[in-house]
Amino acid sequence: MTNKLYDTSLSLLTDLYQVTMAYGYWKTKTAEKEAVFNLYFRKNPFNGGFTIACGLANVIGYIENFSFSKKDLRYLRILTGNDEKPLFEEAFLDYLANLKLTCDIEAIPEGTVVFPNEPLVRVRGPILQCQLLETPLLNLINFESLIATKAARLRLVVENDTLLEFGLRRAQGVDGGMTASRAAYIGGCDATSNVLAGKLYDIPVRGTHAHSWVMSFANEQEAFDAYAEVLPNNVILLVDTYDTLQGVRHAIETGRKLVKRGHKLAGIRLDSGDLAYLSIEARKLLDAAGFQDTAIVASNDLDETIISSLRQQGAKITVWGVGTKLVTAFDQPALGGVYKLAALRHERADQPDNNASAGKPSEEADNETTDGLAHQATGHRVTDHWEYKMKLSEQAIKISTPGIQQVRRFRDERGFMADMIYNLEGMDGSVSKSATMIDPLDFTKRRHFDAKQPHEDLLVPVFRSGKRVYDSPDIHTVRARVQTQLANLHPGVKRFVNPHTYPVGLEKGLHKLKTKLILTLREGQTQD
Amino acid sequence: MTNKLYDTSLSLLTDLYQVTMAYGYWKTKTAEKEAVFNLYFRKNPFNGGFTIACGLANVIGYIENFSFSKKDLRYLRILTGNDEKPLFEEAFLDYLANLKLTCDIEAIPEGTVVFPNEPLVRVRGPILQCQLLETPLLNLINFESLIATKAARLRLVVENDTLLEFGLRRAQGVDGGMTASRAAYIGGCDATSNVLAGKLYDIPVRGTHAHSWVMSFANEQEAFDAYAEVLPNNVILLVDTYDTLQGVRHAIETGRKLVKRGHKLAGIRLDSGDLAYLSIEARKLLDAAGFQDTAIVASNDLDETIISSLRQQGAKITVWGVGTKLVTAFDQPALGGVYKLAALRHERADQPDNNASAGKPSEEADNETTDGLAHQATGHRVTDHWEYKMKLSEQAIKISTPGIQQVRRFRDERGFMADMIYNLEGMDGSVSKSATMIDPLDFTKRRHFDAKQPHEDLLVPVFRSGKRVYDSPDIHTVRARVQTQLANLHPGVKRFVNPHTYPVGLEKGLHKLKTKLILTLREGQTQD
Repeated sequence: MTNKLYDTSLSLLTDLYQVTMAYGYWKTKTAEKEAVFNLYFRKNPFNGGFTIACGLANVIGYIENFSFSKKDLRYLRILTGNDEKPLFEEAFLDYLANLKLTCDIEAIPEGTVVFPNEPLVRVRGPILQCQLLETPLLNLINFESLIATKAARLRLVVENDTLLEFGLRRAQGVDGGMTASRAAYIGGCDATSNVLAGKLYDIPVRGTHAHSWVMSFANEQEAFDAYAEVLPNNVILLVDTYDTLQGVRHAIETGRKLVKRGHKLAGIRLDSGDLAYLSIEARKLLDAAGFQDTAIVASNDLDETIISSLRQQGAKITVWGVGTKLVTAFDQPALGGVYKLAALRHERADQPDNNASAGKPSEEADNETTDGLAHQATGHRVTDHWEYKMKLSEQAIKISTPGIQQVRRFRDERGFMADMIYNLEGMDGSVSKSATMIDPLDFTKRRHFDAKQPHEDLLVPVFRSGKRVYDSPDIHTVRARVQTQLANLHPGVKRFVNPHTYPVGLEKGLHKLKTKLILTLREGQTQD
Repeated sequence: MTNKLYDTSLSLLTDLYQVTMAYGYWKTKTAEKEAVFNLYFRKNPFNGGFTIACGLANVIGYIENFSFSKKDLRYLRILTGNDEKPLFEEAFLDYLANLKLTCDIEAIPEGTVVFPNEPLVRVRGPILQCQLLETPLLNLINFESLIATKAARLRLVVENDTLLEFGLRRAQGVDGGMTASRAAYIGGCDATSNVLAGKLYDIPVRGTHAHSWVMSFANEQEAFDAYAEVLPNNVILLVDTYDTLQGVRHAIETGRKLVKRGHKLAGIRLDSGDLAYLSIEARKLLDAAGFQDTAIVASNDLDETIISSLRQQGAKITVWGVGTKLVTAFDQPALGGVYKLAALRHERADQPDNNASAGKPSEEADNETTDGLAHQATGHRVTDHWEYKMKLSEQAIKISTPGIQQVRRFRDERGFMADMIYNLEGMDGSVSKSATMIDPLDFTKRRHFDAKQPHEDLLVPVFRSGKRVYDSPDIHTVRARVQTQLANLHPGVKRFVNPHTYPVGLEKGLHKLKTKLILTLREGQTQD
């Protein structure tokens, strides 16, 4: 991991079935078969209109440190099946001992705005290796993307106010806290209370005192005075231990002493009660006493909805401390990312394959049109080498999309227009061709993009044959990217209530490939 | 940490305000003042009637490894206040460099059934040290207790069926997954899919194959046959890649070949669709083919409610794989544990203290009665040494309870009767006295326990002057304890809908101490 939090090998941080499947591939001599897996999610979290990609830096760290230690193998050796005999042959453990990852990995950089069905990470390489990476990649990308998205939503609500992350004590474990602090900063927080995250990730840290400080003194005034005496350059006084407005008066008293000594009362903090009413009254008291520059900080189970409501009520709060609701993504604590096999190197070019699990696109697939990219998607020779793969489901949303996927984002002068998912093997890589994108919910709705339409391809090379070819930008650059990206999104997409759906579709050739494959698979079922 | 997952010092895994307060105590020469903090929660999670205490083993590991590294101090040295000057003096960093924890810590053992307001952990020692431990203790106890409770609820629903935890890919970070696997096993799961958790925590691991295995073969039958060939002693076939009941027929076909070779078809797994209908139909097919012993495993966003409903519908599922909903505690992803200052060693015995923050119980407090423990709670000499502390709030539930708290659990022949929180300094430690417990919601409701009533005190010594005096039981013993504990609870308390509230009250002396303190504090406010 890039965060140096772990010393143990994390190569066993995976589901057992990845290892049993790896064993299966090894035993059936298909371990080296080249596969392509796409990692994507199906729905934006929080009923929102967008998601922020995050977690790639940790993925890179994970992959760079991937190797099975002697202890890992000792553990695998003792696992048994239902006959109490070992699950794995010794030769397989030797294979794992010598395993070096050789995959090609492409990914969408951290801090990019992404949408359902877009591959955030694409892994291409020996199927055994791809399989072993499924669980850790999902774990790392799902959680950080979830939290970065939550923080980005909070940033949209607080606008130019200060946003602080205070969640460590309620986070889901040590790393739940650490990772959340990183992703929350990237998503738009200004600082964290988590000192270790500050140290390891270079995030600004903030904090002053808790109720216990006040309670440990004879009275509140003494407690405030003592704090200001000791840390005069960091004075934000928590005023609600006993009676909030009385607390504000005590803070003002302390503030006067601070000013005399050439310091300032940076802020007061409200942590309970009616934050709208109390902040308005506190503001009046502070202003009347000449403390117009003293900030009012609020905390207490805040989230987007509560902050939005407080702002609408005219609350005089300019610094928002958000904890539990942010670091656990309380209203949706998991992003449902999946990792699906999308293509296998086709090894039997002379055996036309029309059984239930494979769908090699045939020449006829392209009879309908011959224009543009669609033609390439099936007519190109390279395609013959790949068997496209997908999982069927009764629910359309659960049907995966085949192909070695890339995402092309088109833009105009107002910002992002639409994202087109296409099959790399069906594109020649040049931008000289026009493209047609099919609406995923209504295939008769199409958008045409000519060759001059500005665009960028979102997935960038991260590993080539197991070697890293990408440097993660520093965390502040990633954080800035989130805001630039969001500025390019139509406000309707960023709306919280019934957000506009940003257009994401399949390139026509990929759409046809997918449709053909579904029909082939369904036919396979009925014949079976 | 006992799980050896971390190599970095975790002493900075805390909120910055704990460090600034520590600095404040040090500067005001109160760092060594003896304090007592209680860690407790206010409400059972999931609208349930009980909680399972968990996380103590990790707390012990954390405390045993507590020390500030040179790197930690280097980081603290560069932190600045709003005038860009350092926050902390060099001499304070030297103090931290040499700091050894010397606290006494008592805790309720892992696997114990606990209830709101009961101290799960009590820390007594120099206030600076107590303060630094707040955030990590909350992080570790909150999350593991939450997940252990969730797993215990699932166990209640599945009864004697097998319960598997499959959550790693959707967990909140690496440690979110690791810690959840541990707590889920303790709470009642039989095994996990998480191999690293299996290795580090000695939890049984389970798993066979995913859809990608099936998709990587020419067809499902080939895929099943190959898996059974390779891992004949671990065959649970996932049958829903294309068409579920067709998949069951393919599995039966593979099963016949397995049987011929002297092995068995251990199970089939359903991961989508109408699990009630499909499991009933699958059971018929399996039974008709002679596979009465083949288990039906189900997964797919299961939780207590869905499993309960499936069982009521007569689903033929006996193995339940639960993932996201368990490891993220989806319906309530945080337990709101808090850590409150409850007493400070009273250093000014000659100064009667009646200001707003302190509440030394006076002799008059006991005028009302002189019976039993109540007398001791205020009349005992030891009490004179302690200043009792609490935080006020408009909401009664947020008012903390003062005292050096212990929990006495009374039982009768049917099981647990009631838990009484009492102030240790108000009890003489002997069981020769009768006790009166006050209902927290109606002080006129009281229960009397005579000296012969069987009981145990729940908090046990874990550290004495910073030295560990407690050995954590192994994980299997802790897991067994959960079931023994639950067996002692009235079924009404374990009910999910409107559970009966298990009686927890304050011992009469403590109740009076708290009441008196509230009145003193409120009076202090109005006079202020």
